[in-house]
Amino acid sequence: MSKILSQKVKIALIQLSGSSADKQANLQRAAQFVDRAMREQPETKIVVLPECFNSPYSVDKFREYAEVVSAHKMSTSVAFLSQLAARHKITLFGGSIPEIDPATDNVYNTALIFDESGALVDTHRKVHLFDVDIPNGITFKESTTLSPGAKETCVPTPFGNVGVGICYDMRFPELAMIAARKHSAFAMVYPSAFNTVTGPVHWHLLARARSVDNQFYTVLCSPARNMDSGYHAYGHSLVCDPRGNIIAEAGEGEEIVHATLDPQAIDDFRMSVPLYKQRRFDVYPDVSK
Amino acid sequence: MSKILSQKVKIALIQLSGSSADKQANLQRAAQFVDRAMREQPETKIVVLPECFNSPYSVDKFREYAEVVSAHKMSTSVAFLSQLAARHKITLFGGSIPEIDPATDNVYNTALIFDESGALVDTHRKVHLFDVDIPNGITFKESTTLSPGAKETCVPTPFGNVGVGICYDMRFPELAMIAARKHSAFAMVYPSAFNTVTGPVHWHLLARARSVDNQFYTVLCSPARNMDSGYHAYGHSLVCDPRGNIIAEAGEGEEIVHATLDPQAIDDFRMSVPLYKQRRFDVYPDVSK
Repeated sequence: MSKILSQKVKIALIQLSGSSADKQANLQRAAQFVDRAMREQPETKIVVLPECFNSPYSVDKFREYAEVVSAHKMSTSVAFLSQLAARHKITLFGGSIPEIDPATDNVYNTALIFDESGALVDTHRKVHLFDVDIPNGITFKESTTLSPGAKETCVPTPFGNVGVGICYDMRFPELAMIAARKHSAFAMVYPSAFNTVTGPVHWHLLARARSVDNQFYTVLCSPARNMDSGYHAYGHSLVCDPRGNIIAEAGEGEEIVHATLDPQAIDDFRMSVPLYKQRRFDVYPDVSK
Repeated sequence: MSKILSQKVKIALIQLSGSSADKQANLQRAAQFVDRAMREQPETKIVVLPECFNSPYSVDKFREYAEVVSAHKMSTSVAFLSQLAARHKITLFGGSIPEIDPATDNVYNTALIFDESGALVDTHRKVHLFDVDIPNGITFKESTTLSPGAKETCVPTPFGNVGVGICYDMRFPELAMIAARKHSAFAMVYPSAFNTVTGPVHWHLLARARSVDNQFYTVLCSPARNMDSGYHAYGHSLVCDPRGNIIAEAGEGEEIVHATLDPQAIDDFRMSVPLYKQRRFDVYPDVSK
């Protein structure tokens, strides 16, 4: 069976503290933690940052912190992450940052993915905006100031392909299904920031469901919880294996999660429970087509 | 918001003992338990039986126990279930039984659904056959003697529509997605027989995932565990609410599970987390179309 993940690979998730108002400080803190992760596990090849790690997670702040994202003329955060990836020779899922499109003036919640040379490989603009209204829970409406992305995203790494979604994208199974089926991804990475209402009920469940239905890894990277900020992130950054076992998980504080992704875990489950040969696209359409 | 479930409705799951070789005894036992369920909760309107409740769950027995299923000229088990539904004025998801199609000589694992008058409303032939080979776990190959069904199934009840799958169908999210989106089903019912290998790892997870992704009820009805039979069913028949909470669950023995399905639980979750308005069929196709 062809391995969609070419070798064992070490991954680190940086569960940074909820972002401060100081963008430079947020970037520096991210770099300090990535440096530390690489000291702790020098063989690490993939690093993931949380959603909106360089700005407050607040609808009235996104535009103020937004940058024009370009692979050629790099803005502050883009250049910073590019150098960080290149310095450590890692594939960097640089969390997400507010992005402004100068052509339309639209603002997006955008994940940036860099290769080992520091090149910006691709971006993912959050497709499903977080518009919820849970009585006695949380009300949030990203669409007040953000525009939604319009494509699914899967990026190449030296080890195989990885699908990308951001947080609320996780509630819509299609992005993971497409990454797994169309792009033969070995993992789905979601920089995320669930909160203390939605996290306890659905964070682990959604990660495990995406893994088991697609028989690949699911990686969630959250900010640490900061009860002084306006948004209380859930924390619990985690790596879920293809069978739905959580193999590494953070608590709620600032923390680095290390894990090893193993091609054998994918192949063993797909061999024993061969969903990929058993789907019935004569009965229902294939969302990846 | 239009209610896809018209009122609160009581449901009973009959976790029968693993079926014996005596079909008549299996049918009688099913009737005794349905009678008991109706005595315990006389307002019950929907009753569910387990997968292959009238025959041993064994690839070399399916043909021997198979019946020609017809709404007009009812075979032994079909007539028996029809009378049971009519006597109690219930919608009966009559588990599944081996069915033989006289035109093709194919044998199917078929769920039978009866309305309150005893009419056979529809059948669901298991679409995804249980062919797995888990080292040091379980090897089973339904396709040795069974043919797969070729359609998704959703049936009307007096309270709204209900999607139907059988056991391994649960591992393929599309049937539930189609029931929820195309047919506005308020629940997905899976007569099932996970085992002591796959049950502990994925039974609850899959039920909860189908519920949360589709914001409706998921109902799993298993045989009781019988360590004397050739197949050790997991048990744990359960009802999962739209938010992924298991609101009623059996143990491993012979047992009846009672639960109440509540339209408010569906509406509340869909109002607060409005997935149905947020899906992005401009980015990915709708599997229900």
